[in-house]
Amino acid sequence: MQAAEIDEEFPVVDIDAPALDAARMLAEHSLPGIVVLTADGQVYAVLPASQVVRFIVPSYVQDDPLLARVLAESVADRAAEKLGGKTIRELLPQHQLALPIANADDTIIEVATIMGRLRSPLIAVMKQGKLHGVITAPRLLAMALKCGLIDNGHFRAVTTRRLSGLSS
Amino acid sequence: MQAAEIDEEFPVVDIDAPALDAARMLAEHSLPGIVVLTADGQVYAVLPASQVVRFIVPSYVQDDPLLARVLAESVADRAAEKLGGKTIRELLPQHQLALPIANADDTIIEVATIMGRLRSPLIAVMKQGKLHGVITAPRLLAMALKCGLIDNGHFRAVTTRRLSGLSS
Repeated sequence: MQAAEIDEEFPVVDIDAPALDAARMLAEHSLPGIVVLTADGQVYAVLPASQVVRFIVPSYVQDDPLLARVLAESVADRAAEKLGGKTIRELLPQHQLALPIANADDTIIEVATIMGRLRSPLIAVMKQGKLHGVITAPRLLAMALKCGLIDNGHFRAVTTRRLSGLSS
Repeated sequence: MQAAEIDEEFPVVDIDAPALDAARMLAEHSLPGIVVLTADGQVYAVLPASQVVRFIVPSYVQDDPLLARVLAESVADRAAEKLGGKTIRELLPQHQLALPIANADDTIIEVATIMGRLRSPLIAVMKQGKLHGVITAPRLLAMALKCGLIDNGHFRAVTTRRLSGLSS
């Protein structure tokens, strides 16, 4: 079974859209993350929802839970001005993130390897240079279960079998 | 608004349950992760779905996407024996993971800080030493939007206001 056979349609967001759009989409559809595209449709980043959550925390607080606890409204209000009206591009890290992308013909085990290594809640599947769809972690597990790659009491790492081609 | 007001019920899994149980629960309910409890009900870990996905990949392949690509069925079959019938405990890292937990009275900004720092798709909310509920990243964003902490075109970091207590 190949990546392009199990991926799904998923909302995407433009890198120059308001950061609010990403937050709203994730919230409304209960998404684990969102694919960020450039103006010409290239995948620029995959933003886990847990990182979009950072956008509501002033940067000087992000690594200091104690500061979050004592943060008073007056200070937070001033921080708000710095965050207001930002685009997604402005809120992304300066260095580009490692892209959790897979090729259309990648096997489940290849997708699982990329997902686990990058700790990404979803993988963007590329076909002929374009975004074909997205595979979330629960979706990948569901397909692994369905294909018997994980069976009763056994995790079977036989995912490299091209089941779609070999089944009989 | 406090953590205990926005958390939700969520499936949990016992640390000595088969790893299959975690995979199945995540797949069936499309969960972003799952809370692992010890026999006496303490939170031991929060497993992101992206890490449970690792269970279907032999450990020697996990950090090597190239190896995943060339992995043949015969090799994978042998690896399967090593993974078969494992419990969640056996598949967790040797060192205990940093626990993404919040207190019942933590504010949205505190929960967001913990979530962002640990890159966790969900936060376990503790009340009087027991698991009270779980907050996912999309849920946190939804509540931040609802409370006007993120408003039209503006991310407002006023989340430390105890809205529940101060609203009038």
